[in-house]
Amino acid sequence: MRPIDALVSSLPDGRVVTDPDVIDSYARDRTFVAPGKPLAAVLAGSRDDVVATLRWASEHRVPVVPRGAGTGLAGGATAGDGAVILSLARMDQIRELAPADEIAVAEPGVITADLDRAARQHGLMYAPDPSSYEISTIGGNLATNAGGLRCVKYGVTRDSALGLEVVLADGRILNTGRRTMKGVTGYDLTGLFVGSEGTLGVITAATVRLRPVPAAPATFAAEFGSLRDAGAAVSAIMAAGCQPSLMELLDRATLEAIDDWRNIGLEAGTMAMLIGQSDASDGQAAAARMERLCLDNGATFVAVSSSPQETEELIGLRRMAYQAKERLGACLVEDVCVPRSVLPDMIGAIEAAAARHGVRICTVAHAGDGNLHPVFVFEHGTSEPPPEVWAAADEVFTRALELGGTLTGEHGVGVLKRRWLALETGPVAREVQHGIKAVFDPLNILNPGKAI
Amino acid sequence: MRPIDALVSSLPDGRVVTDPDVIDSYARDRTFVAPGKPLAAVLAGSRDDVVATLRWASEHRVPVVPRGAGTGLAGGATAGDGAVILSLARMDQIRELAPADEIAVAEPGVITADLDRAARQHGLMYAPDPSSYEISTIGGNLATNAGGLRCVKYGVTRDSALGLEVVLADGRILNTGRRTMKGVTGYDLTGLFVGSEGTLGVITAATVRLRPVPAAPATFAAEFGSLRDAGAAVSAIMAAGCQPSLMELLDRATLEAIDDWRNIGLEAGTMAMLIGQSDASDGQAAAARMERLCLDNGATFVAVSSSPQETEELIGLRRMAYQAKERLGACLVEDVCVPRSVLPDMIGAIEAAAARHGVRICTVAHAGDGNLHPVFVFEHGTSEPPPEVWAAADEVFTRALELGGTLTGEHGVGVLKRRWLALETGPVAREVQHGIKAVFDPLNILNPGKAI
Repeated sequence: MRPIDALVSSLPDGRVVTDPDVIDSYARDRTFVAPGKPLAAVLAGSRDDVVATLRWASEHRVPVVPRGAGTGLAGGATAGDGAVILSLARMDQIRELAPADEIAVAEPGVITADLDRAARQHGLMYAPDPSSYEISTIGGNLATNAGGLRCVKYGVTRDSALGLEVVLADGRILNTGRRTMKGVTGYDLTGLFVGSEGTLGVITAATVRLRPVPAAPATFAAEFGSLRDAGAAVSAIMAAGCQPSLMELLDRATLEAIDDWRNIGLEAGTMAMLIGQSDASDGQAAAARMERLCLDNGATFVAVSSSPQETEELIGLRRMAYQAKERLGACLVEDVCVPRSVLPDMIGAIEAAAARHGVRICTVAHAGDGNLHPVFVFEHGTSEPPPEVWAAADEVFTRALELGGTLTGEHGVGVLKRRWLALETGPVAREVQHGIKAVFDPLNILNPGKAI
Repeated sequence: MRPIDALVSSLPDGRVVTDPDVIDSYARDRTFVAPGKPLAAVLAGSRDDVVATLRWASEHRVPVVPRGAGTGLAGGATAGDGAVILSLARMDQIRELAPADEIAVAEPGVITADLDRAARQHGLMYAPDPSSYEISTIGGNLATNAGGLRCVKYGVTRDSALGLEVVLADGRILNTGRRTMKGVTGYDLTGLFVGSEGTLGVITAATVRLRPVPAAPATFAAEFGSLRDAGAAVSAIMAAGCQPSLMELLDRATLEAIDDWRNIGLEAGTMAMLIGQSDASDGQAAAARMERLCLDNGATFVAVSSSPQETEELIGLRRMAYQAKERLGACLVEDVCVPRSVLPDMIGAIEAAAARHGVRICTVAHAGDGNLHPVFVFEHGTSEPPPEVWAAADEVFTRALELGGTLTGEHGVGVLKRRWLALETGPVAREVQHGIKAVFDPLNILNPGKAI
């Protein structure tokens, strides 16, 4: 019997896909990274399916690439030659929702926004909201420790993860963490799995923290004649303790991309826009304070609104940014994060790199966190960015690290950031991380070559 | 040359203490756990001292017990026969305080409240505030992932730890994490070290997150005729999204202990007191909402105040609880944490265990987190609690786990909770944790026998 036949016979009917065209559609994420020729895709419907797949993979030493919805931006779910893809998308049940304890237990295939909506039926919310949250899954969010717009106030995915059910590489079940708000029994295995990009085990359920739905937000949008002024306004707002629930910065290039598409009436002198929200119970007052701080820091125009429709439009503008860029060309989406005080310097470095290498870079930032997404645009249809894009990206990463920053704030390393990994992670940390990897996955079958 | 002479000669003068009486004072924490006969205590003054000590210990296979201020409540810093105690108390410099980035870099010996005070010079605060924060150190807080009163709003120590400098068992330096608010490069080693009770490495500096100082708090105190009513009020307050910055529950036995000492005029029918705060910008309104919810849930008396002096008195009452109990006898301080909805059930189970075994148990709770500290009081001068205390504790832990809780919310496992560890941590998790331990400390010299 061929190994693949043993896999098919160990799983319920219809779980294993071997049609190369279908496999190919499961072998990619949202990046341009080209996959290899995987052996098969398993569409897991239960924890038992995951166990059977991993036992088989261990026995036959076959690499396994776990995936959620494939919305990743770092090539973390790209599958190579001979690998088996393990899709968790069909494991999409919310196993439990306990409003009084403000927790939910969700399977990895639950769409992030669906979990949020289910919580809202009970006056609660699931806070993490990566830009892709209408199509991304909880499992993928956990694998990358996804951030989002609200994380400036509510933290990243790790801050909402209390406990996990994980299938290890050899098929054993590991339960980590707890159902309680606090707990320090043993090492923090939950935190270790979150952000490990499928290299340590396959998450089959997560106990996550929910929070009471805050007040309807008050929103402001401010225009600035310089990026530096916008950066200064961000610093002032954060330092004043305004606790924005969202604080997004869009640069001129991004605004132009949106304007080209949707004609938003962009003014000639507008070099940056800041969109912020407060969902505090006195949010209107907080938004007014933030408006004042924008004006004090050189904003040329500020509008404050608490109308749901206007708020939706402003946030829609921000959520439109990535699609607007995809109209311009293929995109290398980067994700540097710097200490907040050097945000203007980092933006300056991005502009300089764009000019020096003749590359179009459009930047949006989760500015309250110092997390920037410079998007390097290049010609559609090319499978690999041209050398000038890599050169500009190299400059951006190098500068981010010089400024005390990190390569990736919320997207993960995947395969795209491996080339810069050694600049941030020293040899001792690398050795330790590979040691940890070997504890969980001694045969190195789980998403090999990713993350570390 | 004896091994100890090699240690002395590898360190600056005066770093190594060998007087048995002095060693003994460094061999204990705040519990009754009796130490053994350690070989020596090293009073480290620098990272180099830590490196030299660990290199020596690796060479000679000597167990090393790191310690901060010895305020631990689980025996985690208790030193056994032949061990070397490594005190980090003298490494007490705040290396950096960067207000614009809202971070500080602190050595492990910095007193927690001192870091908070230093931050407040710049309009910032260091949020974690274990009850011992005037005498505990940052290093000890990191080792146990300490919680505190404010963590109901601001999270535990792990939520404020961004990056660490660690000396590994073999003397190598490991840098983890980052200076930025977000970051997902590689596995979360920072989170792994926080709460690992000195078993994976010795932290010699921590980059921590600061936060803007919130508004002056509005405080309420509510008295209840039953613990169940108080528990219901807590649930209602949390569910209403009041976001208290503190939410402490004191049971009748605790109130009596305080009343015996300081005569607070305790009413006959008062079975529980709830003390809560809001530090929101509209805190007075939030406190009034919490007052209303207490009355709706059967409070017999509620007082709200925003006067700093009255606030100080109310919080002082809570901070007095532990000392009041120490007047009554020796204390076994426990630390179970349960899902918030079963807080009244857990309190009921504690009362039942006290009655069944004839043990005095006084309970305070960080009620907003479901984290209870039942304090088992027994005769002063006994080095070990009597069997009925262990029996009652056994019942309390078993019930906490049955209710979906955990053995320890914020104190750590140390040695005192090892006897119950297997009830919470399954065999796979145990094996994985020991595997991780072996990656960092293959010779098992770092605080052996603790935590896992």
